[in-house]
Amino acid sequence: MADPLTGEWALVIHGGAGGPAKGTMTDEAEKQYVERLTEALLLGTKILSQGGTSLDAVQAVVAFMEDCPLFNAGKGAVLNEVGKAELDASIMDGRTRAAGAVAAAQTPTHPISLARAVMEHSEHVLLVGAGADRFAQERGLPQSPPAYFITDERAAQHMRAASLGRITLDHDALYNGPSASDKTGTVGAVARDAHGHLAAATSTGGMTNKRPGCVGDTPLIGAGTWAEDQSCAVSATGHGEFFMRSALAYDVHARMVYGNHDLHEACAGALGRVAELGGSGGLIAIDKDGHIALSFNSEGMYRAWVDADGLLRVAIYTES
Amino acid sequence: MADPLTGEWALVIHGGAGGPAKGTMTDEAEKQYVERLTEALLLGTKILSQGGTSLDAVQAVVAFMEDCPLFNAGKGAVLNEVGKAELDASIMDGRTRAAGAVAAAQTPTHPISLARAVMEHSEHVLLVGAGADRFAQERGLPQSPPAYFITDERAAQHMRAASLGRITLDHDALYNGPSASDKTGTVGAVARDAHGHLAAATSTGGMTNKRPGCVGDTPLIGAGTWAEDQSCAVSATGHGEFFMRSALAYDVHARMVYGNHDLHEACAGALGRVAELGGSGGLIAIDKDGHIALSFNSEGMYRAWVDADGLLRVAIYTES
Repeated sequence: MADPLTGEWALVIHGGAGGPAKGTMTDEAEKQYVERLTEALLLGTKILSQGGTSLDAVQAVVAFMEDCPLFNAGKGAVLNEVGKAELDASIMDGRTRAAGAVAAAQTPTHPISLARAVMEHSEHVLLVGAGADRFAQERGLPQSPPAYFITDERAAQHMRAASLGRITLDHDALYNGPSASDKTGTVGAVARDAHGHLAAATSTGGMTNKRPGCVGDTPLIGAGTWAEDQSCAVSATGHGEFFMRSALAYDVHARMVYGNHDLHEACAGALGRVAELGGSGGLIAIDKDGHIALSFNSEGMYRAWVDADGLLRVAIYTES
Repeated sequence: MADPLTGEWALVIHGGAGGPAKGTMTDEAEKQYVERLTEALLLGTKILSQGGTSLDAVQAVVAFMEDCPLFNAGKGAVLNEVGKAELDASIMDGRTRAAGAVAAAQTPTHPISLARAVMEHSEHVLLVGAGADRFAQERGLPQSPPAYFITDERAAQHMRAASLGRITLDHDALYNGPSASDKTGTVGAVARDAHGHLAAATSTGGMTNKRPGCVGDTPLIGAGTWAEDQSCAVSATGHGEFFMRSALAYDVHARMVYGNHDLHEACAGALGRVAELGGSGGLIAIDKDGHIALSFNSEGMYRAWVDADGLLRVAIYTES
C-alpha cells in the first residue's frame, strides 16, 4: 500500500473487525462510522505532522475512539454478564519496548491513558481489576461511574444476549437484522513518527455478556499489541482467544526478524495461524520504513489510514 | 544435554530462578529443595513412563509444587501489599495450542488445575480476579481460605518488605543473610510424552509486597508459557515485566520455526532479549525430539530433569 518512507510519518487505525455485511447497515450508520474514523485519523495526523511522537498519536487516537459510543471501548463498551463494562487496553513504545496495560478495569474514562500511566509511572506492565482502578485514582486520572460507560444501545444488546444466554463478540450478529451498534468493535492504532519511532495501542470492552474477569488478547503485550522500532507496530482485533493462542502481534514481529518476511507476508502469515484454529478478525500494522498493512479474514474491518502521499483513506468492507 | 529421542518421553521442572548464592543456604535448606524437586520429578516420571500425557504430567508436577510451601506458588506463595496471596498460573497443550490461565486468583488450592479447567471447560483462555475464583467454585475445584496459603515465613518476608516499602521478586535478597524462604520461586514444568506431544505449565504468587492486581508473565500465554508440538514447550521464571516485553516463551518457538535455531540457540537468544532490557531469570524448554534446555542468567535456578538415559538430575547453582 505505502511506498517506503524515510523520515515520513504514517498512521493506521481500526475500529474493530467483523462488522455487518455490506448493505445491511443504514447509510446514516455508515456515515457516522466514516465520520468518526476520519476525525480520529485527523487527530493523530495533526500530532504526527507537527513532529509529535507516535506514542502520543496512538494514545490520542485511541482515547478519542474510547470517547465515541460507536466503538466497543471506553464509553459504549459492551456489557458483561452482570451488566457492567469491563475495560482492557494496552500500549507499547517501539523505542524501548516499554509497555503498559490494564484489564478488567471498571472506572478509567480512558483505559488507554491508564495503560500508558502503568507503563510510565509503575514498575509493572499489567494491572488488573480493582488494582487497575486504584492506580487510576492514585495517578489522578479521570474516572467515571459505571453508568457513564453504558449506552442505551449496549444495554439493549446486553439484554438480548443475556436472554439468549450467549456470549458474543462485539461484531457478531445476535439476531436477524442487527443494528450497527451490535457490531462495532475494539479500537486500535499504530503509527510511525517522523523520528522513525513506532508505537501501538489497543482498547476494548471485550465480548458482550462475557463472564466477569474474562480477558481477551487486547491487554496482552504480544497478543493484541506489539511495537518495536527494528520491525513493526501491530494492533489486533477479533476473537481474542484465538489471537492469544497465536501470540499474534508478536508473531508478525518474529516473522519479519527471524523469517525475513516483509510486513504483508508477516501479517498474512500471522493471521493464517489464527485462521488455522478457526478464529477470525484482523490487524493493522506499520513497519520501520512506514509500510502499512491492514489484514482481516472477517467480513470487513472499520479502518482508516494516512501514509506517504498524505491522503486520508477510510474503509469498512473488503472491497473498499 | 539430551540426545534426540524418538517415542521417548522427557520432563524438565523448575522451582524458580535466582536463589541464594552458593554457600549462603544451610545444608538442611538445600536438602529440602533437592528432596521436593526429586519428588516432583518422580511424580511426573511415573505418569510419563506409564504412557500418560505430557499435559497430565506437567499439571501434576506443578500442582505438587503448589502444595509445597518452599515454592512461591499455591500454598507458600508470597504475599501482596495487603498481605494476601494472589495466584497466577497457565497451561498449554502442544497438540492443539489449547491454553488456559488464571491471574490474581485468591482461592484456588491448585491454580494450575483451575487454569486447565479454563482451557477445557470454558470458551476463554484467561480469567482474572474474582471471576477466576467464581469459576473454581462453579467447577467444584478445591478452594481454600486466605490463611491456607500463608506460611509463617512468607508472613515474615512480607513484613520485612512492607517495612522497607519494597516490591521484591521472590528470589531477591531483602537484607543481608536472607533465609532460603525469601528466595524460592515460581514453579513450572515442560514435558514430551511417549506419543510425541508437548505441554507446558507455570504457576506463581508473583512478587512480594506487590500491588494488588499486578500480574506478571506467568499467566500470559506467549510470555511465561508456550507449547506447540511442531517446535517446543517453554516455562519461564524471573522478572516478569521483562519477560512480557520480550514475549519470551513464544520467542523460543519463533526462533526455532522462522529462524531455524535449535532449542539451545533459541533459548539463549530469547533470554538475551530479556537481558537486553536489564532483566534476569531463566527458562526450561523441551523440543519435539525430546532435547531439553535449562537456561538462566541469574545466580542459579532450582531445577530437575529426566531424559533419554532415564537418570534423574537435580541442580540449584550454575556449576551443577
